[in-house]
Amino acid sequence: MHRWAWLALVVSAASFADEGMWTYNNFPTDKVKAKYGFEPTKDWLDQLRLASVRVAGGCSASIVSATGLVMTNHHCVRECVEDLAGLKKVDLTKNGFFARTEKDEARCDKFELNQLSEITDVTARLQAVTKDVAPEKFADTQKQEIAKIEKECQSSDEFRCEVITLFRGGRYDLYKYRRFQDIRLVFAPEEAIAFFGGDPDNFMFPRFDLDVGFLRIYGEDGKPLATPEHLGWSSEPLKDGDLTFVSGNPGGTSRLLTVAQLEDDRDFRLVYSLGRFSEWRGMLTEYQNRGVEQKRHSTQALFSIENSLKVYKGRHAALADKAFFEQQVAAEKALRAKIDGNPEWKKTYGATWDTLAGIVKKQQAYRKEYMALERGPSSDLFTFARQLVRAADELPRPNPERLKEYSDARLPQLKQSLASKAPIYDEFETARLAFSLVKLREDLGPDHPAVKKILGLKSPQALAKELVAGTHLKDPKVREELFAGGKAKLDASKDPLIAFARLYDEDARAIRKKFEDEVDGPMKRQGELLARARFAVYGTNTYPDATFTLRLSYGAVKGYLEDGHEVKPLTTFAGAFARHTGAEPFALPRSWLDAKSKLNLDTPFDVATTNDIIGGNSGSPLVNSRREVIGLVFDGNIQSLGGDYGFDESVNRAIAVTANALVEALDKIYGAHRLVEELKPTK
Amino acid sequence: MHRWAWLALVVSAASFADEGMWTYNNFPTDKVKAKYGFEPTKDWLDQLRLASVRVAGGCSASIVSATGLVMTNHHCVRECVEDLAGLKKVDLTKNGFFARTEKDEARCDKFELNQLSEITDVTARLQAVTKDVAPEKFADTQKQEIAKIEKECQSSDEFRCEVITLFRGGRYDLYKYRRFQDIRLVFAPEEAIAFFGGDPDNFMFPRFDLDVGFLRIYGEDGKPLATPEHLGWSSEPLKDGDLTFVSGNPGGTSRLLTVAQLEDDRDFRLVYSLGRFSEWRGMLTEYQNRGVEQKRHSTQALFSIENSLKVYKGRHAALADKAFFEQQVAAEKALRAKIDGNPEWKKTYGATWDTLAGIVKKQQAYRKEYMALERGPSSDLFTFARQLVRAADELPRPNPERLKEYSDARLPQLKQSLASKAPIYDEFETARLAFSLVKLREDLGPDHPAVKKILGLKSPQALAKELVAGTHLKDPKVREELFAGGKAKLDASKDPLIAFARLYDEDARAIRKKFEDEVDGPMKRQGELLARARFAVYGTNTYPDATFTLRLSYGAVKGYLEDGHEVKPLTTFAGAFARHTGAEPFALPRSWLDAKSKLNLDTPFDVATTNDIIGGNSGSPLVNSRREVIGLVFDGNIQSLGGDYGFDESVNRAIAVTANALVEALDKIYGAHRLVEELKPTK
Repeated sequence: MHRWAWLALVVSAASFADEGMWTYNNFPTDKVKAKYGFEPTKDWLDQLRLASVRVAGGCSASIVSATGLVMTNHHCVRECVEDLAGLKKVDLTKNGFFARTEKDEARCDKFELNQLSEITDVTARLQAVTKDVAPEKFADTQKQEIAKIEKECQSSDEFRCEVITLFRGGRYDLYKYRRFQDIRLVFAPEEAIAFFGGDPDNFMFPRFDLDVGFLRIYGEDGKPLATPEHLGWSSEPLKDGDLTFVSGNPGGTSRLLTVAQLEDDRDFRLVYSLGRFSEWRGMLTEYQNRGVEQKRHSTQALFSIENSLKVYKGRHAALADKAFFEQQVAAEKALRAKIDGNPEWKKTYGATWDTLAGIVKKQQAYRKEYMALERGPSSDLFTFARQLVRAADELPRPNPERLKEYSDARLPQLKQSLASKAPIYDEFETARLAFSLVKLREDLGPDHPAVKKILGLKSPQALAKELVAGTHLKDPKVREELFAGGKAKLDASKDPLIAFARLYDEDARAIRKKFEDEVDGPMKRQGELLARARFAVYGTNTYPDATFTLRLSYGAVKGYLEDGHEVKPLTTFAGAFARHTGAEPFALPRSWLDAKSKLNLDTPFDVATTNDIIGGNSGSPLVNSRREVIGLVFDGNIQSLGGDYGFDESVNRAIAVTANALVEALDKIYGAHRLVEELKPTK
Repeated sequence: MHRWAWLALVVSAASFADEGMWTYNNFPTDKVKAKYGFEPTKDWLDQLRLASVRVAGGCSASIVSATGLVMTNHHCVRECVEDLAGLKKVDLTKNGFFARTEKDEARCDKFELNQLSEITDVTARLQAVTKDVAPEKFADTQKQEIAKIEKECQSSDEFRCEVITLFRGGRYDLYKYRRFQDIRLVFAPEEAIAFFGGDPDNFMFPRFDLDVGFLRIYGEDGKPLATPEHLGWSSEPLKDGDLTFVSGNPGGTSRLLTVAQLEDDRDFRLVYSLGRFSEWRGMLTEYQNRGVEQKRHSTQALFSIENSLKVYKGRHAALADKAFFEQQVAAEKALRAKIDGNPEWKKTYGATWDTLAGIVKKQQAYRKEYMALERGPSSDLFTFARQLVRAADELPRPNPERLKEYSDARLPQLKQSLASKAPIYDEFETARLAFSLVKLREDLGPDHPAVKKILGLKSPQALAKELVAGTHLKDPKVREELFAGGKAKLDASKDPLIAFARLYDEDARAIRKKFEDEVDGPMKRQGELLARARFAVYGTNTYPDATFTLRLSYGAVKGYLEDGHEVKPLTTFAGAFARHTGAEPFALPRSWLDAKSKLNLDTPFDVATTNDIIGGNSGSPLVNSRREVIGLVFDGNIQSLGGDYGFDESVNRAIAVTANALVEALDKIYGAHRLVEELKPTK
C-alpha cells in the first residue's frame, strides 16, 4: 500500500511534493523555483495558457503550430475517427488516418475546442446574493445570478462563459473561453499502437503506446486558423530528472471531501457504479461478437467503459485502504479541533461537518431516482428527444429562470449538439436504451409509478426496439426543425421518442428540483463554509479540487518502486517489439513491423513523470521550461488513480508519449512528412 | 434502515426473536414452547430430520410421500429440466414437464439427494490432535484426522460422511448421510410461473410464484423407493400467526465474523464479486441474443448469476449500513472487554481478534492468485480436466495425505461427477472459458509468470475456442477411461484440455498450500479460540453460522412494515392475474390463462414467515406442528439478505408457496391428478 503524502496539502503550505493541479491565477511559482530553480513569469504562464485548449467532450489538447495544428490523444479523437469511418465505410480505427494534403483533413462533427482567454473572480458578487437566503433557496438564487453573469460575459457565440465553483464553494471564477468549432482530423495512427496492450496494460507502466491524434482548427473562412500562441517543439531526448509541466483539464478530484462524503463514496456511490459499469462492459464485450460492423461501432464505448471501470476501481481501492482512510479521519479531526479551539471560528464553521453528513443521507435517499429519471437513459437519441422537449418548455422562460443547460450562455452548445451529423447506429442505440430501461426498472422497482408510466405493458427490449425504429430524430434536419419550431411544433410532433421523453419529464424535473434544493444547494453552502474554514486555518496558498478546467502542474521525469522493484521512467521502441505477441491487444500493426529496420529502436517511447494529473488531462502537452513540447500525456499509472483522494509523490505518475517518439514514428513509419515539417524545432 | 435485533444472540441467551438456524442436536425446544406453546419431542425432531433431504448441488428438499416423492423448488430442478430439454430437443423449461405415468419419470443425471441419518460429536478427537501443533501445520494435521474419521464412518458408497466445522471452529460434528443417486423428475411447471416477475421481483414480496418441482427417489432395483419417514400434507388454509417450522440447509452466514473480517467483506470481497458477477451477467444477457438455442442453454446460468448478484448486493447493503456496522463494532468491543476483565480468559483469548486481523491481511494478499489459479476457470470441461489430472496424482498417495476432495470418502461424488451424461454446449463452454481467461489476465496482470505460461502467445478467446473444439472430455466414456487408467494413461493423453489443466497445476497447488497453511488453518485455530471465548461469556445455548447442513428454524406467518406501509403475509391467485401484463417476466403461461375460470382465485398463493433462513434453504418444506407440509420455501424478502450478518425479526422474512396453492394448481391447471392423490392429507 502507498504512503499517502498529500496530507502535506492541508497541514502545511510549504509542501515539497510535486503536488497540485494549480489554477493559472494562483500558480506557486515560488515552490517551483525553490525545488527546480526555474520561476515561470506571468507572460510565460499566459502564453502556455493560450496554447492549451480543451476538447469539449472531456480531453485536453495543445496548439503546436502557427497554422492551427492541435495535438491530443488518439483516444480523444477516436470518436471522430469512428464517425468518419461510419460515413466512409472504411475501418479507419483499425487502419489509421493521415491527411496527405490539407484538402484531405476531415471535419470532426461533434468536436469543439475551447481556449481559456480570460479569468475573472466573481466570488464576492455570488456570495453577496446568497448571503441571507434560506438553505433550500440557495441553489436557485445562485443559479439565477450565474446565468446573469454568464450572459453579460458572452458577447457573441464565439465565446463560451462559465462560472466555475472552486474549493467546492470557497471561490467562484468566471472563465471566458474562445470557441473553435470547425475542427478537422489530420492524423491518427492505428488503434493497435495507440492502445497497444489494451485494457490489460491500461493504467500500467511500463507502456508502449503511440496515443496521439492531430487535429487542425479552421477559421470561419474555411482556412486553417492562424495561431501565433502555439507551443514550440523539443528535439532533445528526454532524460531522468528533467523538469516537466502539464497544462490541461483534470476532470475532477475529491481531495476536499469530508469523511461522511468519503464513506458515501466508498460504501455506496463507487460500489453502485462499479456494478453498473461492469455489467455494461460485459454486454458490450459480447455485443462485439454480433459482427464486424457491430464490433466497429461499439469499440469506442467498450474502451470508454473499461477505462472508467479501472478509474473507479482505483478510487475504491484508495478508500478501502484502511491506513489512508484513517489518515483522512485524523486530518478532519485535527481541522475540527482547530476550528473548535477558536470561539469565533467555532460559531461560524463548527457545525459544518455534521450538517454535511445530514445532507449526504438525503443525497443517498434521492440518488437512485435522480440517476434513473433525471440522468435518464444513456442513448444519443433519447438525449436529443429530451433536449427538444425541454428546450420547448424552457426557452420561453426568462433566462435566469431556466434549467441551467438552457440558459442563453449554453445555447450555442445545445444547437451544435442537435445539429451533429455523426452517424447513429439503430442496433446499438436499441441495445443501450434497452439496458437503461432494464436498469430503470431494477433500480426503482417494477411498482414505482414512474416505471409503470414509462414502460407501460411492454418489456424494456420491445419498447427500445420500437422507439428506435420509429423515431425520426436520427435526422439532424428533423431535430433542427423541431428546435426552431418551438413549443407549438413540438406539441404537434407525433414522433414516438418525443412522446417517450415527455413521459419522463414531470418525474425527472421533480426529483431534480428536490435534489438541487435539498442536496446540491445546501451542500454548496456548506462547501463554502468548509473552504473558508480551511482558508482560515491553513491559508489560501493551495489548489482547489479539479473541475475539468485548465490547471498547471509541475514535476519531473522520474521512476518509482513497485513491490520493491524499480520501474524506470522511460521505455523505448525496442521494448514495444519485445512485447509484441501477435495476438490482440499485444499485436503491433503491420506498419510498425514493416518499418522496424528503419527505426532507431533506442528512441524513448513513453515516459513517467511526477506531475499531479487525473482523467481529463488526457491529451495535455508535457512541456519544458522553454514551453516546448517534450511529450503528450495519455494516462496515469495505476497508483495515480488513488490521486482522486490524495497525491502520493512516491508512486503517483503521469504517463506520456515522448516528443521524440512522435517525430520518429510520423517520419519513418507513417511518412507524415508535412507534419514533421510543421513540428520542426524552432531554433 | 432496519433495526438489527440479532445482537440479542450474543448479548443474552434468552432471546425472544424467532432467530436461529439451529442444529438438530441443539434445538431450543424451551424457547419454542415459551413463545408458541408447542414443544417438539426428540421423536418429532428425528422424524422431521429424516424427511428432510439435501440436493447435493445446493438446495433443500423434503420427502412427501411413502413412495419416494420429493418436493423442492423449480429453480432447484431447473438444471435437470434444462439437461432433459437438451437431450430431448424440447423446451421443457418454457413448457413445463409432467410425467403422466411412473414410466415417464426421467432421470436427473447430475442429481444426488442426501438424508442426514446420524450426527456424532468429534470435537474432542479433533482438538486433541491439533492441540500442540504450530499454526502453519494446523490445516494439514486437521485435514489428515478428518480424512481418517470420514473414512472410518463410511461403511459403503451408500453413505457420505462429512466432518462439519461449527461455530467456525468451536465444535466439530460428523454428519453421516444416506445417498440417493437415482433421482427422477416428476413435475416442473412452466418457468414463466415458477419465476413469475423474474429478476425484477426476485427477493421481493408480495410474490406470485409457483416455484415447485417434484422429484422421485428410486432404489437400486429401479423402483420408487419406499420412504416411510415422509411428511404429511395439510389442507387447511394458512393464516396470519400460524406457527411454522423450516427444515433445510442454509448455505452460509457470517454472523460470527470479527470486525476485521466484516471490513474485508465490505471493502474487498463483496465489492470484487459484485463487479465480476455484474460483468458476467452483462455477457450472458447479450449472449442470449445469439439465438433461440443459445438463449435456452444459458438461461439457467443467467438466473443463477442474477440471484447471486442480489444476494451479494443485500449483504453489502447490510455492511454499508453505518448503524448496523457500528453495532457490530460495539458488540465486539463489549465481548473483548469481558474477556480482558478475566485474567484467565485474557491470557487464553485476549489476542485472538488482533491475530485474526493479521490473518485477514494475508488472505487479502493471496486472494487473487487463489481465485484465479486454484478456483480456476468456470467451465465444466476444465473441471473435468482438472479432476482427472489431480486424481492421477492424488489417488496413489495415502488417503490422509491427499487433497481433501480426493479422499476416499469423497471418491463416490468424484466418480459421479465424471460420469455425468448432462449435455455440454461447446459454444457456451467457449464463452465461459474465454471470460475466465480474460479475468485471469486482468486479475494477475499480463506479466504474471502463470498467466504467461497459461496463455502463451494466444488471445484468451482464441485459446478457449481451440481447447473446447479440440478436447474429447465431452464424452463421459473418455473421462471414465482416463480416470480408470490412472497416472500412466493420463500422462499418455494428448487431449489439449488435459495439457491445459496441467499448466495450472503447479502454481495452483502452490497458492493453495500457502492459503491453507497461512490463512485457512490459522483462521480456524483462531476461530476455535473465539468460539470458546463466546461460549465462556455467553454459554453454549446458541446456534452456529450456517454451513449448508441441516438446520431447523421456527417462526410464524407474519407481515411487516416497509417504508411505513404494511405488507400482508399472504398473496392470492387473484393477485397473480392482476400483475399479468403479457410481457416477460410478467406474463402468466397459457395454462394459467386458460384455467382461470376453474380456479379458486382466493387460494393463498405465496406466504411470508419470520423463519430465519438464507440461500440453500430453497426447497425447504414449511411444516406445522403436526409435521405436515403447509408450504414450500423458495425465497426470502430483500431485507432477509442482510440476514447473512444478522437477523432482524421486524423485517426479515422467508417466502414460501402455500400447500394450498400447490394442490390447487396441480389439480386444476396441470391435471396432475396422480400427484394430487399422492399428496392427499393423511387423516
